[in-house]
Amino acid sequence: MVLLNCFVMKPSRSFASDNNAVVHPEVLEAIRRANQGHVVGYGDDPHTESAVGKFREQFGADVGVFFVFNGTAANVLSLQALTRPFHAVLCPELSHIYTDECGAPEKFTGCKLVPLAAPGGKLTVETVAHAYHGIGDQHHVQPRVISITQSTEMGTVYKPAEIEALARFAHERKMFLHMDGARISNAVAAQRLSLRQATRDLGVDVLSFGGTKNGLMGVEAVVFFRPELVEDFLFVRKQGMQLASKMRYMSVQMEALLTDDLWRRNAEHANRMARLLEQEVKKIPRVKIVYPVEANGVFAQIPREAIKKIQERYFFYVWSEEESVVRWMCSFDTTEEDVREFTEFVGTVVRDFPN
Amino acid sequence: MVLLNCFVMKPSRSFASDNNAVVHPEVLEAIRRANQGHVVGYGDDPHTESAVGKFREQFGADVGVFFVFNGTAANVLSLQALTRPFHAVLCPELSHIYTDECGAPEKFTGCKLVPLAAPGGKLTVETVAHAYHGIGDQHHVQPRVISITQSTEMGTVYKPAEIEALARFAHERKMFLHMDGARISNAVAAQRLSLRQATRDLGVDVLSFGGTKNGLMGVEAVVFFRPELVEDFLFVRKQGMQLASKMRYMSVQMEALLTDDLWRRNAEHANRMARLLEQEVKKIPRVKIVYPVEANGVFAQIPREAIKKIQERYFFYVWSEEESVVRWMCSFDTTEEDVREFTEFVGTVVRDFPN
Amino acid sequence: MVLLNCFVMKPSRSFASDNNAVVHPEVLEAIRRANQGHVVGYGDDPHTESAVGKFREQFGADVGVFFVFNGTAANVLSLQALTRPFHAVLCPELSHIYTDECGAPEKFTGCKLVPLAAPGGKLTVETVAHAYHGIGDQHHVQPRVISITQSTEMGTVYKPAEIEALARFAHERKMFLHMDGARISNAVAAQRLSLRQATRDLGVDVLSFGGTKNGLMGVEAVVFFRPELVEDFLFVRKQGMQLASKMRYMSVQMEALLTDDLWRRNAEHANRMARLLEQEVKKIPRVKIVYPVEANGVFAQIPREAIKKIQERYFFYVWSEEESVVRWMCSFDTTEEDVREFTEFVGTVVRDFPN
Amino acid sequence: MVLLNCFVMKPSRSFASDNNAVVHPEVLEAIRRANQGHVVGYGDDPHTESAVGKFREQFGADVGVFFVFNGTAANVLSLQALTRPFHAVLCPELSHIYTDECGAPEKFTGCKLVPLAAPGGKLTVETVAHAYHGIGDQHHVQPRVISITQSTEMGTVYKPAEIEALARFAHERKMFLHMDGARISNAVAAQRLSLRQATRDLGVDVLSFGGTKNGLMGVEAVVFFRPELVEDFLFVRKQGMQLASKMRYMSVQMEALLTDDLWRRNAEHANRMARLLEQEVKKIPRVKIVYPVEANGVFAQIPREAIKKIQERYFFYVWSEEESVVRWMCSFDTTEEDVREFTEFVGTVVRDFPN
Repeated sequence: MVLLNCFVMKPSRSFASDNNAVVHPEVLEAIRRANQGHVVGYGDDPHTESAVGKFREQFGADVGVFFVFNGTAANVLSLQALTRPFHAVLCPELSHIYTDECGAPEKFTGCKLVPLAAPGGKLTVETVAHAYHGIGDQHHVQPRVISITQSTEMGTVYKPAEIEALARFAHERKMFLHMDGARISNAVAAQRLSLRQATRDLGVDVLSFGGTKNGLMGVEAVVFFRPELVEDFLFVRKQGMQLASKMRYMSVQMEALLTDDLWRRNAEHANRMARLLEQEVKKIPRVKIVYPVEANGVFAQIPREAIKKIQERYFFYVWSEEESVVRWMCSFDTTEEDVREFTEFVGTVVRDFPN
Repeated sequence: MVLLNCFVMKPSRSFASDNNAVVHPEVLEAIRRANQGHVVGYGDDPHTESAVGKFREQFGADVGVFFVFNGTAANVLSLQALTRPFHAVLCPELSHIYTDECGAPEKFTGCKLVPLAAPGGKLTVETVAHAYHGIGDQHHVQPRVISITQSTEMGTVYKPAEIEALARFAHERKMFLHMDGARISNAVAAQRLSLRQATRDLGVDVLSFGGTKNGLMGVEAVVFFRPELVEDFLFVRKQGMQLASKMRYMSVQMEALLTDDLWRRNAEHANRMARLLEQEVKKIPRVKIVYPVEANGVFAQIPREAIKKIQERYFFYVWSEEESVVRWMCSFDTTEEDVREFTEFVGTVVRDFPN
Repeated sequence: MVLLNCFVMKPSRSFASDNNAVVHPEVLEAIRRANQGHVVGYGDDPHTESAVGKFREQFGADVGVFFVFNGTAANVLSLQALTRPFHAVLCPELSHIYTDECGAPEKFTGCKLVPLAAPGGKLTVETVAHAYHGIGDQHHVQPRVISITQSTEMGTVYKPAEIEALARFAHERKMFLHMDGARISNAVAAQRLSLRQATRDLGVDVLSFGGTKNGLMGVEAVVFFRPELVEDFLFVRKQGMQLASKMRYMSVQMEALLTDDLWRRNAEHANRMARLLEQEVKKIPRVKIVYPVEANGVFAQIPREAIKKIQERYFFYVWSEEESVVRWMCSFDTTEEDVREFTEFVGTVVRDFPN
Repeated sequence: MVLLNCFVMKPSRSFASDNNAVVHPEVLEAIRRANQGHVVGYGDDPHTESAVGKFREQFGADVGVFFVFNGTAANVLSLQALTRPFHAVLCPELSHIYTDECGAPEKFTGCKLVPLAAPGGKLTVETVAHAYHGIGDQHHVQPRVISITQSTEMGTVYKPAEIEALARFAHERKMFLHMDGARISNAVAAQRLSLRQATRDLGVDVLSFGGTKNGLMGVEAVVFFRPELVEDFLFVRKQGMQLASKMRYMSVQMEALLTDDLWRRNAEHANRMARLLEQEVKKIPRVKIVYPVEANGVFAQIPREAIKKIQERYFFYVWSEEESVVRWMCSFDTTEEDVREFTEFVGTVVRDFPN
């Protein structure tokens, strides 16, 4: 009876994306607490000051911190701060900035984004070096930024030395290293580092610090590790349509995330659920994990016919039609029960289809 | 003792801006209610469908409705939908899009904004006609949009016939009428019309529908009254960095605003407080109201020396240094007591300064 | 008989614009001479080196010189080199960049152009100071460039001290002074200065140096007086679609213009013809010169009904419909006979119309 | 003695690029003839009317024809006419618009250019179909234009059926087919077709018609085969900084090119020289032709050490450092003697280097 019911009612949580999750209760409570009296708009309020202070505790007293509405904006405005329109941004061919932002980086910065092959989602010095050419040639866009995603779009995590090498390569050529950290907390939690150790200390110049996918309602931060880049960013943000009038409600979300290590608690939990998911689905015959599960995403090759059937009950995205690879993401609110029910269902469906 | 205290502690609400206000409790409650289970991101969720439905009830079943993060984006993306880069947008010289958006409209659309004199904040057919020239001349940008603000930046309200005349002028020349309705609710409430009567029925083509200044946390809507304009707007919004991943939290705010006429209740209250404020400050010698108080803003010329003194206690903006004019805004959470304490304080300060 | 003929055949030269003129024979001869053998494209050829050398003789050994196709490009790319998109360019409301370039400056730079009242075509420190505000305010575009036109669009000429004052104002505020010198030769010839004395020595930072209106086929130069601005300009020009492949044919034109003072000879002649024209038309009753004739343009208020009649024979532009003001330009190939025939005709027509 | 001399003096013509060539005498003569009397600027002159008429004779009475300064502009403005910024342009990864225009297409149109593998320089329906995805998905740029180069950057020529297939694919999906015809004359001459048969009749929507590489001083034309695309292009061109004031000097070049089949005579000659060059260098051991020689370019793999030695005497470009492939272009002014001297020299140098 219960089982039947379970097949009739859709489950309340899926594995489609960490942005399908709710807002963490501590974040909602922070919003509620902030909801009294008037405060000045556009960031000149005590909540924002306090939230920025939390970032300084994590990353150093001299960082520049700016809140924006979403990850696309964090990335695009970071790049705008680092480039002029004749510059090029070197990035993985499957990176979010290249494939999933509807050309926003090109439109706003005027730059060319150069897509580089990146198996497992990671750029290497070798790949980047190969694309570093045409320097000083007026016919060619001039490479200016290397942009990496941590954790990557494939759920893998750059090792510290890999990032250091890219930063060194960049800095020796007057280039910058940008990190799309939509899921930086998942990477840092996985590596048991501090936020600073995993970013600034490795040579990252600008970080898109993700909040939304890790329990916030909708806030990301652009964090500058080079004070000289900060000067004009207030104008870049406003002209980029990313300045909130009631800023306090964004700031308190970030403040909550950096309070009592909520960012790490949420990320660790999501990562743990992904490892559990991996472990469970690996037991199912004809399901193959295609990337190392190093953060909160699981990429699996499954029988093509099973996909649709599973999606009737659980919403999720197909990563590669051609290879029959699907993406399953865990989030801070994923429960062990969610994972077990899901993998049980997947197992049932897959086994239903004959070889 | 109480009085003394009142002069020592800062008041919890000021008259700086309606965006200094809190989030209305009904809105916060709607957010709280929506905070359970997973829903698909980017707007394909039932909350968004329901919120859009509320707009259709108000404006007609065929309107296109898109939520964005702030007023700058609502305006800029509206203009982007209506123009190509060689077009011109005719607007008041003190309009928000011309003076307060850090050039975001020019940057994103590539268009020239043509500033027109607009006493009291209102464009007239005569002013617009004077700027309508160079048609077909390849050296000149081509007028394409008339953009008006309702209620205006000076707290005045266009009469229906004034808007109709501008719409007619525009449509006879293949131009569009855009309305920056950051405070459209205040205007509509003041005129005792329906939202539709005050916009679409007058010939407005695209409306930036304001929520944030009327009790939301931070959501505005772009509302298209011409279905043929809608087609590509999903891409315009995404490329404009204005697509929320956790959209449900924006949608439920708008849904709450359009439920049980919260938009009108909030706006009527703010308007009433502005009229009370006007009435009270008019009693103070040497304070002169400079624009008709038709919505929720009061613009007053006060003795120059008094400004700083009042600002020590109450934060607000000087509208014109040269003319010694200040702007005082009321919001849905302004209380009668707030108004009385404020005007009492203003009176005390002004009277302190000898003629 | 001859007179009759003269009324039947259109005259071969009009007073519409100095860009209606032919190419000076010395320039055409330079092109012919350059037309042998292969040379490397895109500016790495000996003709370009030689032409740049001529500029260095005039302006100093450290100037950066870049040839572009037209005046719009010279202006727009100059501004692009000096700005980021959140900057503002302060310019006369009737300047070419503001009114006659179809929004190219806004489209390419992303900046706002701020139109300032400029009677007689000239900005003053007072006007500019009034528009210099909102500094550091994230809502406002940040003034970065003052752009002036020399000689002005009204045929007047800034005095050296007027330019120096604007340059000082700019530099004290980390702003730049750009000069649209589409007719710089006419201004310099009128003032009996050297090119350098009239530009760089007065504090101009970047000069759009005009060639086309002074006898070339179609070349302008962007001249940088601050070496630090030069670095990236090769890329700006190419990305701005202004790099000629067969550059030698542009370079030799400029070289010819700077050889044996052709620039000054042409400009002086055009100026002299304008003075003659002024002198002659002043004799006609009901014709009023409205701006001082200081370069090669004559602006005259004439009876409204006469305009069309004169235009049947001589093509020229109406400067102000409302004021019935017309613009008559002289060029290097205007002859004294052209002027006399024209003024005679104007006189006949005007006198035909009763008061 | 003569031979010695020949090795001491640099040859007057190289094989670097067809844009290193001179201007054809008939073109220069046309310019000379046009150099008398005043004509109205910006294209409203009889020379331009006549030149446009020549295009209509070739392509049909309803084509829109616009002259611009260079090939980059012809391509970029064509794309601007066809797109909105959220569109994508599918093009070969080594196409001129993708690699050699310093990001001008992205900067001006805001679009993403999607680089596709194109062996021999040619796109196929299969390649394009593979890149045609994400339709209607707001996260993805929307494919709008297929851009091909004829003759290609590798000196090959699309067959009519190949172009027809691409056009059909495009039109079935509301996409456009743009042709970068910087060397269209070479392709058409090679195929013994008419200009129309090789473009419009195959389904091309917009053509960048090249003149500069085929004997002009510097003019290209944007030719629209769909009248509905023409309407706004005057503004696109002006805003794109591509409107010449002394237009007559551009128009007469194009008129000369389309008179007495000069375009075909020049192209046929260049093609014949390329075939001769191919034939001669094929005789040299260790020189390998890498692409079919179908127009006026010869791509050869030669011993790495020989390149520098040959370049000491003849300037040309290395196409691929890695593969040791060089590019040799013939132009209308290449002589048989040029080819024989060059190939003799190449042979001598290559044979000098031991295996």
